[in-house]
This record gives sequence, C-alpha cells and structure tokens, in this order.
Amino acid sequence: MEEIITPDVENITELFEAKKYARIREIFVEMNPVDIAALLSDFPKERAAILFRLLPKELAAETFVEMDSERQEHFIKSFSDSELKDIMDEIYLDDTVDIVEEMPANVVKRILSSTDATTRAMINKILQYPDDSAGSIMTIEYVSLRKNMTVADALTRIRRTGVDKETIYTCYVTDYNKKLLGMVTAKDLLLSEEDTEIVDIMETNLVYAHTHTDKEEVSQMFSKYDLLALPVVDDEERLVGIVTVDDALDVMEEEATEDIEKMAAIVHVDKPYLSTSVFETYKSRIPWLLLLMISATFTSMIITRFEDALSVSIILSASIPMLMDTGGNCGGQASVTIIRALSLDDVEFKDLFKVIWKEFRVSLLCGASLAVVNFGKMMILNGRDPDVTIIMIIVISLALFCSVVIAKLIGCMLPMVAQKIGFDPAVMSSPFITTIVDALTLLIYFNLAVLILHIA
Amino acid sequence: MEEIITPDVENITELFEAKKYARIREIFVEMNPVDIAALLSDFPKERAAILFRLLPKELAAETFVEMDSERQEHFIKSFSDSELKDIMDEIYLDDTVDIVEEMPANVVKRILSSTDATTRAMINKILQYPDDSAGSIMTIEYVSLRKNMTVADALTRIRRTGVDKETIYTCYVTDYNKKLLGMVTAKDLLLSEEDTEIVDIMETNLVYAHTHTDKEEVSQMFSKYDLLALPVVDDEERLVGIVTVDDALDVMEEEATEDIEKMAAIVHVDKPYLSTSVFETYKSRIPWLLLLMISATFTSMIITRFEDALSVSIILSASIPMLMDTGGNCGGQASVTIIRALSLDDVEFKDLFKVIWKEFRVSLLCGASLAVVNFGKMMILNGRDPDVTIIMIIVISLALFCSVVIAKLIGCMLPMVAQKIGFDPAVMSSPFITTIVDALTLLIYFNLAVLILHIA
Repeated sequence: MEEIITPDVENITELFEAKKYARIREIFVEMNPVDIAALLSDFPKERAAILFRLLPKELAAETFVEMDSERQEHFIKSFSDSELKDIMDEIYLDDTVDIVEEMPANVVKRILSSTDATTRAMINKILQYPDDSAGSIMTIEYVSLRKNMTVADALTRIRRTGVDKETIYTCYVTDYNKKLLGMVTAKDLLLSEEDTEIVDIMETNLVYAHTHTDKEEVSQMFSKYDLLALPVVDDEERLVGIVTVDDALDVMEEEATEDIEKMAAIVHVDKPYLSTSVFETYKSRIPWLLLLMISATFTSMIITRFEDALSVSIILSASIPMLMDTGGNCGGQASVTIIRALSLDDVEFKDLFKVIWKEFRVSLLCGASLAVVNFGKMMILNGRDPDVTIIMIIVISLALFCSVVIAKLIGCMLPMVAQKIGFDPAVMSSPFITTIVDALTLLIYFNLAVLILHIA
Repeated sequence: MEEIITPDVENITELFEAKKYARIREIFVEMNPVDIAALLSDFPKERAAILFRLLPKELAAETFVEMDSERQEHFIKSFSDSELKDIMDEIYLDDTVDIVEEMPANVVKRILSSTDATTRAMINKILQYPDDSAGSIMTIEYVSLRKNMTVADALTRIRRTGVDKETIYTCYVTDYNKKLLGMVTAKDLLLSEEDTEIVDIMETNLVYAHTHTDKEEVSQMFSKYDLLALPVVDDEERLVGIVTVDDALDVMEEEATEDIEKMAAIVHVDKPYLSTSVFETYKSRIPWLLLLMISATFTSMIITRFEDALSVSIILSASIPMLMDTGGNCGGQASVTIIRALSLDDVEFKDLFKVIWKEFRVSLLCGASLAVVNFGKMMILNGRDPDVTIIMIIVISLALFCSVVIAKLIGCMLPMVAQKIGFDPAVMSSPFITTIVDALTLLIYFNLAVLILHIA
C-alpha cells in the first residue's frame, strides 16, 4: 500500500518538483473539493493553476466553485476557451450566477460566450433579480413532474435526468403552464406503490417564495419549516426555480454577520476580512464614526452649560465616564436583545407594551443594584475625601439609577419603532442609542446636581 | 366546494362553538404542523388541548414537536398514558430528547415510562453527552447498509424501513462492528444499475464528527461542505448517530444569537425573549454591568488626578464624552469585525500581524479624518470662545487621533489573543474593550494636555 501523504503545501510541492503528477492527482481525487480549493489557495497563483489542471473534469468544476473570486478570475484568464467551456458546463446555474456576479465585464463576456444560448438567457434573467431576493439565489435545475404520472414514471424521469439536477429529493408537480400544483419527496416516491398516481401522494399545502421575497425571509422559512428546498414562483404563481438548503445556510450566516455589523455601526462589506483593502475597510467604518462624533457635540454643550455645577467638586466630573459607560452598556444590552428577538420573530411590534413593561422592571432591578453598589464603592473609596460629601455620592448614585432606566427603555423601544416605520431595526445600533442615552444621562445628572446640591 | 376559511383564532372559535369539530379537523389537516402549533399557542391552554385532540395521530406528533416547552408540559399533564405513548411513538429520537431536556423531573419520568426499553436507553445515553456536543443533537434513525449489498438490496431495505428514518437521502455503510466505512446518497442509488455493489459506488472520504465535537463546529461543517447529514462516531470510530441539516440550521441561529449577546456583555439565556422572566433577564444582564461599573473606577481616578489640568478650561472636561464615545465606537467596530471573522474562520491567530497591520492603517485613516473634522467643528463652534485657545483644540484633536488608533489596535488584538489562550473571543466584548480604551484615552489626553498646555 502506498505511503499515506498528508495533502499539504510542503508534500505536494515535493511531489510536484519530482514531477510525480499522477501521484498528486491520486491524492486530489481522495479529497473533498472544499479542501482542495483551500489547499490551492495556499499556493502561488501560477503553481495553483498548473495543479488545478491535474484534476479530473467534474472534480475540477466542484473545486472551482469553492475558490475565492480573485483566484477564479485568475484561473479563467489562464483557461483556453474549450477548458472554460468544460468547466462551465459542469457547474450548476446558481453557482454560475454567483461566479459571474463577482467578475469584471470582460471576464463575464468570456464566461457567457462559453455557455449555450439557453443557459446564457437564464443567467441574464437571474442577474436581473434584485440583489437580496429569492430570485438571485435560486437555481433552475429541479425535477418537475406531472400529476397524472405514476410513481414508476417519476422514478424513470429522475433516473434519466437526475444527474444534472441540484437536488432530486424534492420534486415539483406543475401543469403545462408551469403553474405549481404540489410537491413530492423522493422518500414519498420510494415508499409508495409503483402504480400510484402522483396526484394522490403529492403535498399541496406548500411553503413557497416569490422571486422578489427577501432572502433573509427565505432562510427563516428553511429554519421554521425544516425544508430541504423551497420553490420560487413568479407573479403568476408559475414555478421558476428553487432555493436549496445549502444556500439557505449561507444566507443565514451572511445575515447574522450583517446584523452584527449594523449593531456595531459598521457599513456592510461583502467580502471576508482579509480580502478587503484598507481603504474599503476605512469606508465601512468612517460614516457612522463621523456621524456619532458630530452628535457628541450635544454632550459637550450640556457639560459646558453646567460648568458651575461641575466646579463644586472634581468628583462630579470624575463620575461622568462611569455614568455614561454604564448607561451605554445598559442601552446596548436592551437594544441588542430586542434587535435579535425581532429578527428571529420572537417579538413583534404588537408586543411593544409587553416589552416596555418587562424592560422597565428589569431596569429597576439593574438600576437599584448598580446604584447601591456604587454608593458602597464610593463611600469606601471617597468617603474620607473632604471635597466629597454624602449628598454628592447620593446624587451620583441616583443619576446612575435614572440613567439605567432611561437607557433600557430607549434601547428596547427604538428598534421596535424603527421596524414599525419601515427601517431595519439593527440600524438602531448600540452607538446610536448610546449617543441619545448619553445626552439624557448628563441632563438628568446635572439637573439632579443643581436641584439637590443647590448649585446655581 | 366548501367555503375557504382562514385558519385563525376567530374562525376556529366560531366553528368550535358550533361544535363543527370535523370541519376544524379538515382545516388542520390542510395546514403545516408549524402553523398549527403557532395557531394553538394563541388559544387558552384548555381550549388548545381540546383542539389538539382533533388532530390525526401523525399530525398530532408533528405539531407537538413544534410547540413551546410550556405548552408541551401542559399537554403532557393532560394526556392519558396511552395518548402519551401514541404521541411519543411517532416522534424522532432527537426531538424526544429535546422535549425531555426541557421538562421537570416528574414529567420526564412519565415520558420515559411511556417509551420502550430500547428508546429509553438511547434517550438516557444521549442525555449524558455534554450540552453543546454533536452527541446531544444527533439522532439514531438513519439508514445503514452493508458494503456487499447491491443497489437493489439497498432500495429494498429503504422501502422496508425508511418510513421511520429521519432521513433516507444519506445512507451509511458500516461493518458488523458498526465501524463507519462509507456513505451513499439516495441519488447515487437511484442513478446506478440495480446490480451494482454498494462498495463500488460508496464515498469513502467522509466528513464526520465525534460525539464530543462542539455543535458550533458541526454547523460550520454543514455550511462548509454543503451537507444534508453528518455522521457522528464514538472514540472507536463506530457510527452512533447522525445530525441532520435542519438541526444544523437551528444551531447556527443559536450560535449567532450567543455571539451577539456576548458582544453586548449579556449572559446567554436559552429561551425566547418573552418567555424569560424579569428576574432571569436581570440575572443575564447584571454580572457584566457590575463588573464594568467597578472597572470604571479607574477612569474616575485618572480624572481626579488631573483635576488641575481640567480646571484650565471647561472645554477640556466637555470633550471627555466625545473622546470616550469615539474611542468606544472604534474599539467596538474593530473587535466585532475580528470576533465575527474568527467565528467564520476567515481569520486565524497566525494572521495576527496581518490583522494588526491592517487595523493600524485603517485607524490612521479614521483617526486623521475624525481629528480633522473635529478640529474644523471646534474652530467653528468654539473658535470665538475666549476660554478656548487653538492649542486646546489641537490637543483635543490630537488626543482623538491617538484614541482611535489605540482603540482599533486593542479592539483587534484582544479577541485573537483571547482565542489563542483558549477563551471564547466574543468574551472580549465591546463593553470590556471600551473600558480599557477609555482609561488609555484619558491617560493620553491628560498627558498631552499637561505637556502641550504646560499645566503642572
């Protein structure tokens, strides 16, 4: 038996320099396309292109699909027309569309000219769907059946055409106008008598999407109904394509990333971190940073106005960061929780008062705990300081309590209101809410100080 | 044809009060179990339990699985022993385990006594696996085949046993010791000649997990390799169960929620928002709030120490919130981006210097933009103020610049270092990093002020 070689850069390079190409091919054939693509990305481009050519056609296509766009572009440029055609012929439509979307115009032209007219028309059609829609992630390689077929007919059709289909496990029943009538699973077919008519076993109460349905909604349908595939219809309820669960998984990952970024006031970039340039990253960060810095002007105006109050004792200024940090953390906890609950459909706008009432009671508990601990901490650390009176410590603790309550109320309300008036609740990001909470915290703090400490 | 009735609370209640139970049953049978469960949850518990009994057995089981734990518990208490047995017999093992995990001890006892000895043993075995492992989410209802079976034999076995299997689309080939040898898909079986031996068409280069593999890693495998099912083996490489893609989707959703919560300094609660009590929510928020408030003591100590510097002009105090907010936002952007990139495997610890170098350059751009805009803003708003000199504005803008650079560097480094030493990078939450950045920002700010403004 051959020595088992770990497929890594060192070993493959060794074999390559010893011209043992057949051995390299053997190793590749045992690997998963995802892992081959990852391995090739660790090689310099020229070497990777040569190694790629060692792959048998089907494996080459599967590997090609898993590579990042930069590499794909480089490879396409190094392919001859017939090599390109061979690869593109093997790739499913939705993967072809994904590749085309990332390529510059001249490469797209080459790709399209290497496909047949029907495929070309389909690619162009799919490219016209809005970016975040079901239409943009669907594929047309599904199995369609007629309702008066028998189970035997259906299995024959699957055997005849199944090799080119993205999935054969969910088959769709349509009429002559492509109107979607029902669905049968491969399991239904295998477990039914061969002479049963499709119409008698098909599921008619279908979950489906329209071409313009948002892809986030699509992925939630997969999660809610435990689907393997979802049919996509046009405005006339005609079946035009399907979305498969692997694409739904990818969408779910993307959408989670987008929500996380929004909550941190980052503008979304559609590439992995190390593939984005410094300038692109800068552009995704700076808009909100500028906006939030400008709005921080309010807090400095407030502080300036209460100059006299602050001059009474340094402890009043020294507590500002603590008050604002705590308020910010509280607002962030509430807003993040509500934004996530909204996106998982655990909470809807009609629950607004339930949510407010709950957050209010939570904020009373949190505020009381924090105020008491702060009081104790300050008595210990600052109690002997001649410039610090107990009244001041009480004022600061009271302001802390109010800040926590305000922060959690604002943090839970704004995302829900945002969604109600049509905005993405994640836009009510933590930094945004923190800015509002900061200004209110300072106003309450200073007014309490003026009131209780009798400062003009 | 019968009038089409929307299945909502009003209509069903109307039919119920008119005692039209057969009609209600007809309506339910047309619905998806997920939607029936959602509808029943809008009814008061007693009414829901009665409506539930109208469902045919298989649909009742599917609906039961989709209900929330509170309702499930109530229903179980209202079932007779034979009703409970009927339901539990229909439910797949992984769903049974999910239900059992949420029930109080006396209900668990009832459930277990209503299942047969084999199932009971399996449930107990699965319950022993660590909470976040592949073992805890797997099921044993898979199709297993022998390698010298023919395709015809395999299809016969599927027809005979398939109805009870969680999935028949991925079948596993094992030897007499249950050692995992390979995998065939239903598609392979349907598209191969009937007399082909399984050993000739099975895939041997398998992706699989161990019973103790973390479930987050499991869901990432589904996403990476586009799997429909993943085999799970024990320490002796024997097949003990499979995880199906619907469970991977749920895990992905949970894990994204957990990461989002960690980044907002919330301790994870395993229930939907409205199902958690006020006290449970309080307990998930207060730990970090307390910790972060205590650590804010550092910032107030720093401010107290620089009392004299601050007394020169109120503008120096007034700019503190702006400096700290901006530093906090910058740190948050960097940490959130890196935490997400780490969890999606876009970035690893070996990329540390690449990441630092990139964040450094981004921070230079962001810092410069913000400092320049701040300078302009302050010249316009505060330029005529006799208490504010250009030098002060320069000091504040310079401190802003330094704060941004420090924030982004700390924000990107801490999560990576945390992961390297074995902590979950998401623990390096925004509030945690903000606290560190705040202290450093103030130190830089005041030292710059003392240096440049020549204050003792």
